Amino acid sequence: MALNVSFLQELLSSVAEQGRALLPKSLFGADNGDDIEELAAALLSGRGEASGVAIAREVLDRYARLDDAARLRFFRFLATDMRQDPEAVSNAARAHLEEPTDASLAKLQKALESPRVEFFRRLHLAPGATPEIVAMRRDILRVLPDEASLVPVDQDLRRLFYVWFNRGFLVLRRIDWNTPASILEKIIRYEAVHEIRGWDDLRRRLDPTDRRCFAFFHPSLVDEPLVFVEVALMREIPDAIGQVLEEPHVQAPAKPATTAVFYSISNCQEGLKGITFGNFLLKQVVEELARETPTLRTFVTLSPVPQFGAWLEKAAHKDNHPVAGEAKALLDAIQRVDWPHGEDETEYPAIETAMMALAAHYFLAAKGFDGRPVDPVARFHLGNGARLERINYLADISDKSLREAHGLMVNYYYDPKEIERNHEDFANEGTVAASRAVRALLKLNPKVRALAAEPPQQALPPPAREKAGT
Amino acid sequence: MALNVSFLQELLSSVAEQGRALLPKSLFGADNGDDIEELAAALLSGRGEASGVAIAREVLDRYARLDDAARLRFFRFLATDMRQDPEAVSNAARAHLEEPTDASLAKLQKALESPRVEFFRRLHLAPGATPEIVAMRRDILRVLPDEASLVPVDQDLRRLFYVWFNRGFLVLRRIDWNTPASILEKIIRYEAVHEIRGWDDLRRRLDPTDRRCFAFFHPSLVDEPLVFVEVALMREIPDAIGQVLEEPHVQAPAKPATTAVFYSISNCQEGLKGITFGNFLLKQVVEELARETPTLRTFVTLSPVPQFGAWLEKAAHKDNHPVAGEAKALLDAIQRVDWPHGEDETEYPAIETAMMALAAHYFLAAKGFDGRPVDPVARFHLGNGARLERINYLADISDKSLREAHGLMVNYYYDPKEIERNHEDFANEGTVAASRAVRALLKLNPKVRALAAEPPQQALPPPAREKAGT
Amino acid sequence: MALNVSFLQELLSSVAEQGRALLPKSLFGADNGDDIEELAAALLSGRGEASGVAIAREVLDRYARLDDAARLRFFRFLATDMRQDPEAVSNAARAHLEEPTDASLAKLQKALESPRVEFFRRLHLAPGATPEIVAMRRDILRVLPDEASLVPVDQDLRRLFYVWFNRGFLVLRRIDWNTPASILEKIIRYEAVHEIRGWDDLRRRLDPTDRRCFAFFHPSLVDEPLVFVEVALMREIPDAIGQVLEEPHVQAPAKPATTAVFYSISNCQEGLKGITFGNFLLKQVVEELARETPTLRTFVTLSPVPQFGAWLEKAAHKDNHPVAGEAKALLDAIQRVDWPHGEDETEYPAIETAMMALAAHYFLAAKGFDGRPVDPVARFHLGNGARLERINYLADISDKSLREAHGLMVNYYYDPKEIERNHEDFANEGTVAASRAVRALLKLNPKVRALAAEPPQQALPPPAREKAGT
Amino acid sequence: MALNVSFLQELLSSVAEQGRALLPKSLFGADNGDDIEELAAALLSGRGEASGVAIAREVLDRYARLDDAARLRFFRFLATDMRQDPEAVSNAARAHLEEPTDASLAKLQKALESPRVEFFRRLHLAPGATPEIVAMRRDILRVLPDEASLVPVDQDLRRLFYVWFNRGFLVLRRIDWNTPASILEKIIRYEAVHEIRGWDDLRRRLDPTDRRCFAFFHPSLVDEPLVFVEVALMREIPDAIGQVLEEPHVQAPAKPATTAVFYSISNCQEGLKGITFGNFLLKQVVEELARETPTLRTFVTLSPVPQFGAWLEKAAHKDNHPVAGEAKALLDAIQRVDWPHGEDETEYPAIETAMMALAAHYFLAAKGFDGRPVDPVARFHLGNGARLERINYLADISDKSLREAHGLMVNYYYDPKEIERNHEDFANEGTVAASRAVRALLKLNPKVRALAAEPPQQALPPPAREKAGT
Repeated sequence: MALNVSFLQELLSSVAEQGRALLPKSLFGADNGDDIEELAAALLSGRGEASGVAIAREVLDRYARLDDAARLRFFRFLATDMRQDPEAVSNAARAHLEEPTDASLAKLQKALESPRVEFFRRLHLAPGATPEIVAMRRDILRVLPDEASLVPVDQDLRRLFYVWFNRGFLVLRRIDWNTPASILEKIIRYEAVHEIRGWDDLRRRLDPTDRRCFAFFHPSLVDEPLVFVEVALMREIPDAIGQVLEEPHVQAPAKPATTAVFYSISNCQEGLKGITFGNFLLKQVVEELARETPTLRTFVTLSPVPQFGAWLEKAAHKDNHPVAGEAKALLDAIQRVDWPHGEDETEYPAIETAMMALAAHYFLAAKGFDGRPVDPVARFHLGNGARLERINYLADISDKSLREAHGLMVNYYYDPKEIERNHEDFANEGTVAASRAVRALLKLNPKVRALAAEPPQQALPPPAREKAGT
Repeated sequence: MALNVSFLQELLSSVAEQGRALLPKSLFGADNGDDIEELAAALLSGRGEASGVAIAREVLDRYARLDDAARLRFFRFLATDMRQDPEAVSNAARAHLEEPTDASLAKLQKALESPRVEFFRRLHLAPGATPEIVAMRRDILRVLPDEASLVPVDQDLRRLFYVWFNRGFLVLRRIDWNTPASILEKIIRYEAVHEIRGWDDLRRRLDPTDRRCFAFFHPSLVDEPLVFVEVALMREIPDAIGQVLEEPHVQAPAKPATTAVFYSISNCQEGLKGITFGNFLLKQVVEELARETPTLRTFVTLSPVPQFGAWLEKAAHKDNHPVAGEAKALLDAIQRVDWPHGEDETEYPAIETAMMALAAHYFLAAKGFDGRPVDPVARFHLGNGARLERINYLADISDKSLREAHGLMVNYYYDPKEIERNHEDFANEGTVAASRAVRALLKLNPKVRALAAEPPQQALPPPAREKAGT
Repeated sequence: MALNVSFLQELLSSVAEQGRALLPKSLFGADNGDDIEELAAALLSGRGEASGVAIAREVLDRYARLDDAARLRFFRFLATDMRQDPEAVSNAARAHLEEPTDASLAKLQKALESPRVEFFRRLHLAPGATPEIVAMRRDILRVLPDEASLVPVDQDLRRLFYVWFNRGFLVLRRIDWNTPASILEKIIRYEAVHEIRGWDDLRRRLDPTDRRCFAFFHPSLVDEPLVFVEVALMREIPDAIGQVLEEPHVQAPAKPATTAVFYSISNCQEGLKGITFGNFLLKQVVEELARETPTLRTFVTLSPVPQFGAWLEKAAHKDNHPVAGEAKALLDAIQRVDWPHGEDETEYPAIETAMMALAAHYFLAAKGFDGRPVDPVARFHLGNGARLERINYLADISDKSLREAHGLMVNYYYDPKEIERNHEDFANEGTVAASRAVRALLKLNPKVRALAAEPPQQALPPPAREKAGT
Repeated sequence: MALNVSFLQELLSSVAEQGRALLPKSLFGADNGDDIEELAAALLSGRGEASGVAIAREVLDRYARLDDAARLRFFRFLATDMRQDPEAVSNAARAHLEEPTDASLAKLQKALESPRVEFFRRLHLAPGATPEIVAMRRDILRVLPDEASLVPVDQDLRRLFYVWFNRGFLVLRRIDWNTPASILEKIIRYEAVHEIRGWDDLRRRLDPTDRRCFAFFHPSLVDEPLVFVEVALMREIPDAIGQVLEEPHVQAPAKPATTAVFYSISNCQEGLKGITFGNFLLKQVVEELARETPTLRTFVTLSPVPQFGAWLEKAAHKDNHPVAGEAKALLDAIQRVDWPHGEDETEYPAIETAMMALAAHYFLAAKGFDGRPVDPVARFHLGNGARLERINYLADISDKSLREAHGLMVNYYYDPKEIERNHEDFANEGTVAASRAVRALLKLNPKVRALAAEPPQQALPPPAREKAGT
C-alpha cells in the first residue's frame, strides 16, 4: 500500500510544531550526513517505536539522495556510533566467565548484538525497504576494500540477509516469453556467462520448446531475480557452446530430450554477495525438469574455464612449476602458428594433445591456497557434488573464451547417486571427482602422469598453498 | 513446487545403498527420537550441505509424526546437544577481553551462535517449511513453563522469527466476503475478543459496506493470517458493543462515515508469541482507511477491560488498599440488588457512579509491578500512543464481559498529533494519556480524588510495584 | 473500470443544457416506464452511437429501479415498438420470392432482425451489463406464461445468449474450500438436487480429498457459476445416496479411487434457461478427472427419478393403462403396511419386486408425447449418450425422495465406447440404452414383459404421444 | 484445460472400430478438402451433439494443415453446401406473407439461418477455438475480392463476431513495461501509424511516466490485443510528431500534464475487420485517464492525413476541379524549389499559405461519394464526434508522411460538450465540425472561400458523389 502522504505529513509536522527536543532541526531541511545520522538515532529511540514507519521511510529517502562522500560518512557513523558498547561487552564477557549460565550467556549475546542490527531491522519497517537495504550493502561492498573499519557493518548486514533470504523464502519461477519485459531486460543485463545480444537473442534462448530458464525470486524483491539458470534440452551432451546457442531448433523434435544442459548461471544482486543461491537453484531446477520432462536422464553443464589461461601463463613463467616446460611449449606453439586462426594447421594436433593434458593437470593437480582447484566455476560445481565429466577442446571460440580459456569448456555431471559422496570428499579432502576419460588425459604427458601419481589428498592439510608446486 | 519423489528417493536410497557410516541405520525405519536426532545432526554436517533439502524435509516429516514425549526428548536434545560449545565461548570471551578488536569480537559472536540456529535455518531449506517451524515453537512454548532448560531454544527461535517476520515482509490484505473460505474459517477460529458465531455472523462483520477487516500475511505462511483487526465505519464513537455488532446497517448510508472504530484485534499464531504485529497493523490500517475513505476524521477503538473485575475483587479484599472500602461497597451493592438483572433499580445510579470512579482509578492510579496499568489491553493501546478517551458503562452485557469487566468497555483514541508524545511519556514515565472526561471521573469519589492528587509519575521510579497502595 | 462519474455527468448534462429535441425531458426526473422507453429509443438512435455507454448504463439503472408493473410495460414496449417493421419484412420477402439471390436474401435477413436485438447489443455497451441483461430475461420468463406477446422478445434474447454463452467462452473452474465465500454461498443456494444444509455440510462436499466440484463460469458473469456438478471419487458404484453424503471419508484412502460418481448437477441462472451447459460440463469434467486421477475407470451418476411417483399414481388411476393393475396393487401395499416405516415387513420383498419391475417399465416402456422417457433426468443423461446402468431400491429415504420417487435412485453410466451410438439411437429412434440387469427387471412382471416385447422404436414416428398407453 | 488425448482417442477410435456409416473413412488419413467436409457435416449431425468437442477440434486441426487451394475449396463448400435451403426459405416467406403472425415470422427467421452459422457455433465447442475461427475469416477476406460467392459466408461470420465481440465482453488493459514480452512484440508488429523500431523504441513509448498505452482484449483471445492506442501526457497540444516521439521526457515533470494526446491507434486482428472497437477504446481511455490524472483537461489527437497527397494530385490533373489551378501551382512550386529540402527558401511562405488553404479545402469542402470527407482518419474521428482543431504544417517529415500528406498532421479535439452534437450533425448531414482557426484557413484563398460559401449540407443528399467538383 502506498503511504498516505497527508496523514504522514501531519504526523511528522505536528510533532515538529511542538518543537520537541528530540527532533533534528533540519528534519525537512537540506540533505547532509548529519540529518540522516540524527534520524537514524531517532529510529533506534522511543520515537522509532511510535513513528517507525515514517522515520524509516525518511532515512531511506535521504540515503537515496546522498552523494558518495556523504554515504561513506554515514557508513562510518554506522561503524562507530552504532557498534556494540565495548564496556558492556567486556562486563558481560567477564560475568559469563565467572558464572557461565544460560542467563549470563543470554546477556552476553545481547551485549554482542550491535545497535545497527536493530537499526537495519527498523529500517525494514518502511514498506518496500528490502531492495533499498540490499542496495545499501552493495554500496558498502564497493568501498569495503579501502575501508576495513566497515567490515563489521558488512558482516551485520550479511548475517541479516542470510536469514532474510533463507532458502525457504525463495520462489522458483520459470522465465519465458510470457514474462514481463521489465524482468526480461534484467535477464539480458545480468547474464554473466554468454552475453545476450538484444531481444532477438533473448527470445532464441527462452521461446523454443527445448529451452528453459528458471530464476529464484524473493517475495520482497518484486521483479528482481536473485539468480537464474539457462537450460537446453538435448539428446546428447554438447561439446561446444555453438550447439546450444546457434543450432536451429526443430519446432517439434522427432525424439524426446534425454539431456538437460545447464549452460549459464548468473547471480544478479551485487548486494547479496556471499549469500548462496546457485546450488539450491540447480537442485530445484533438476527436480522441476525431471517432473516436467520424464524422459530426461542426464543433467549436465556446459561450463567456462575462466582461469585456465591465467594459470597457464603463470605456470609457463615460473621456473620451478611442475609443468613449466609444457606450458611454455604450448604457449609458444600457439603464438608461432597463430592458433587457432593460422593457415598452417600441421601443429594443431600436437597443440590439442598438450592443451588437453595441461587442462587435466589444471583441474586435477593444480590447487589454490585452500587445497581446492583454482577455477571458481569448478569449485562451485564440484562443491555441489558434480563430477568433471569431459574437457572440450575449441568449445567456445569467442574472443573472451580464447583469451581466458584458450577456447576450452567443460561438462560437469550431476549424478544423484554420487552427489553426496562427491560433495563430502571434496569438502573434507579436496578430492576432485572426475570421469575416467578426464583422468586418462593426464597420461598424455609423462611428466603430468608422474605428478598425478602422488595423491593430491595426501598433500592437502590446511591451510594449503599452491600445492601443485610441490 | 512439489518435491519430485522418485528423484528424491533415488537420492536418499542410493546413498543408503552405499552403506555410509554417517547414515542413521533407521533412515526408513520406525520413528523415534533417536532417528530424528541423527538426521538433525546430519543436516548440520557436510551431508546437509549436499542433500539439505531432502534431509530437512525428512526431519520435518518425522517431527510431525512424533508424540508429545518424543517431541520433548527432541527439544531437550536441541537444548543440550545443539548448544554452543562452552569452552569455545569461554576461550573467545577471554581472547576478546585480552585483545578487544573487531576480529576478536566477530569470533566471540561466532562462538555464541548456537548450532541450533544454523539447524533451524537449514530446516528451512525444505519447501513450505516456515509454518512447520513456527508450529515447532508453539510446541516448545506449551512445555516451556515446566522446562526451564528449553528457554535458550525458545530464545533462538524467537530471535530467528523476529527477523523472518520483519515488518518489511508482511503484506496487508483486506478480508471480505470474496476471501477464500479456508481463510475465513480461520478468522472465525482465531477471533479472540467477540466470538464469531458461525458464517452468518461472519458475513455480518465482513460484507456490509460500512465494515472492514484487515490482516497481515507473510508470503511463506500461505493462507494463514498473523493478526487481524475488525473495523466499523460509523458517524459517532460508539459506547456499547451492540451498536457495532447488532445495529442494522443501512445499505447506502445517507451521510458518509467520519469515525473508524477498531472493535476487535486478534493474534492468530501461537508460535509467534512475542513477535509484535498489532501496532503495525493498526497504523497501516489507519493509513489505508484514510486513503480509501477521506471523510474519516476519528480513529478510535471500542475495547474490553479484561482485568477490571479481578482487580476490583482484589482491592475489596486487601484491607490497606486505598480504595478497599469503595470496592467492597460496590461489590456488595452489585450482589445485593442482583445488578444489572435485578428488578429494583433504585440503587443503579449509585452503582454507576461508583463503578465509573473506580474504573478511572483502575486505569489512572492502579499500576502493575512495572509501574504501568495492570490492564493488558490498556498497555497495548497506551503503548502505541493512544489516549484513554471514554469509559463506557454497561457497554457489553455478555456473561463474559459482566464477569471480567462488570460490563465496562473503553474507547482508545488515536490522534496523529499526540501519538508520538503519548508513546514516549508512557514508555519513559508510565504516564497514562487520558481525556479530560476520564480524569474528571476520579473526582466522583473524594477518596479517589485525594489519591489522584499525588501525580503517579512522581511515584514511578523503576522497578515500581503496586504504587496505588502507597 | 468504473465509470468516471463527473465526465459522464458533464456529457449528459451538457447535452441537456442545449435543450435538444431528442432528449427526454425527464432525463434526471422520476423513474417511470415512459422515461426508460425514451432512453431505449435514444440508445437505438444516432445518440446511442455517440454516447452509447452512458445511455446504456442509464437504461440499466432505471430498469433496476422499476417495479413489476413498470417492467411489464417496458417488456410490452420491446415487444411492440421494437419489433421488425412488418411492411419491410413483407416487401423483402416478396422481393426475395421474385428474385431469389444472395443479395435479396441478405436484405430479407436484415429486415427480419428486430430493432430490439440491436437494442440489447447496445445495452451491452455498459461495462458489467451482462448479468443485468441475463436478469432481464429472467424477469421476462417469469411473466411469459401469461404474456404470449413477449415470446418474440424472449426468443431474441435466447438467440443472443446462445451466442454470447457459446461453449468456447465458458471456463471450467474447480470449486473447493479455497474458493471465495461469495461463490460458495451461491453453490449452497443453487444446489437443486441434494440440499446443502449450511457451511459445514458444504465443507464435507468440497474439502475431503475424495470429493470434487466443478463449475462453468463465463468471463463476463464474474463470480456467478452457470452450472456445477458434485463428484465423489469411490471404489464402487454406490447404490444409495447415504454412501456419498454420509460415509466418513478416510483421509488417505488405502486404495486409489476407480469410480467417479456424479451425484448432483445444478443449473444456476434462471435467465439462461434453455441454453445448454450440463452436457458440456459433464464431458469436460470427465476429461479433467481422467487426467488428474489416472486410476479412474468408471464414470457414473447417482441420479434422482423425480417423476416416478407422479407417473405411478397416474398409471394406477387410468383404467386402460397397461400396468394399471400392478401400479394400483403397489400403491395399495405401500399404504397398507406403511412402507418403508411400518413394523410388519413381511410384504416388503414383494413391494421391492413390484417396484423394481414398474420402475423398469417407467424407464424402458413409458414414453412422453415425443416418444422419449417421461423422466427429465433420464432424458438428459440418455440424450448425452449414457446408459441406464442400475435402478437402486431405497437409495434415498429423504421425505422428498420418498414422495417423488418412492426412494428410488438410478445410475447412468458414461462409457466412451458407447456414448456416440447411444446418443444417436436415442435422438433418432428414442431407444433407451440400458444394462442387461435393468432389462431383466422387466421380466419380473409378466404383463410388463409382454409389453416390452413390442419394440418401442417401431411405434415412434413423431409427433409421438403417450405411447405406453397403446 | 488441455484435452485428454487418450480419452479422446478412445472416443474417436472406438467409434471408428464399429465401422459406422456416418464416419468418413479417412478420419485419420491424409488431409484433403473432402475429409474436412465430411467432418464438418458430421459436426452438424447428431454425432456433433454427442462428440462435438472432439469433432470440432479435428476440423480445426485439419483446417490448419490445409493449403490455400484446399481452403478455398472448403470455403466454397461452406458457401454452397451449408447455405440455407432455398425452398424452405421460399415456403416460409410465402407462408408469412399469407399469414403474418409471430409464429410465421419465427419460422421465417429459422429458415433464414444458414446451417453454417450453427456449424461455426459448434466449431466453437473446441477449447481455444476462438482465435482459429477469427483466423478463418481472415483467410476468407483475403480471397473475397475474387470470390463473390463467399460474401454470405463472410457475412455470417461477421454477424457472429459482432455478437461474440460485443463491447460488454471487451476488457481494457494497460500496456506498459511490465506487460509480457509475448504481447509487447505484437504491439511492435501491429503498430500501423508510426512504426516502432525495436524494443528500445517501444520502451520509450511505454515506460516514461508521461506515456500511456491501452488495449482492448477479449477473454477468449488470450494475449492478443484487438486494438490499442498510444497516448502522450503533455502540457500543450503538439503540432509536430517529433514533440511526441523524440522529445526527451523529464522524469518528474515540474508541472502536471493537462493534455492527453492520442498519437496512434491501430487495429490488430485482420479477421475482425468491420467490427468496431476504436471508438469505444478512445472513450474508455478518456475516462480512465480522467480518473487517473485529474489535471487533464484536453483530450486531443495528433493524426496523419493519409489521402491528402493523392487528392491534391487528382485535383491538379482534373481540369474542372474547383481548386485545380491552386493545386497545380502548389505542386509545381514544391517540385521547383525541392521543398522542403531545397536551399532557396524564399518561396516557402507562399507554399505554406497555399498548402494550408488547400488542406482546409480538403477537409471542409472535398467529399467522397457518400458526402463525407475522403480522409479515412477524418471520417473516424469526426464520426466519433470530435472536431478538427488544427492543421499542422510540416508536422511529420518522414518520407512516408511527405509522400502521403506533404508533411501535414492534424489535431482532432474530443470535447465532451460537443461530442454528441458533432456526431449527429456529421452522421445526418455530413457537417464537419471544425475550429474557427481551421475555417479561417479557407479564406487564405479567395476561390476556396467562394466555394465554402455554399453550404455542403445542402448538396449532400445520398448517394452523393465528388461534391467538391460542383
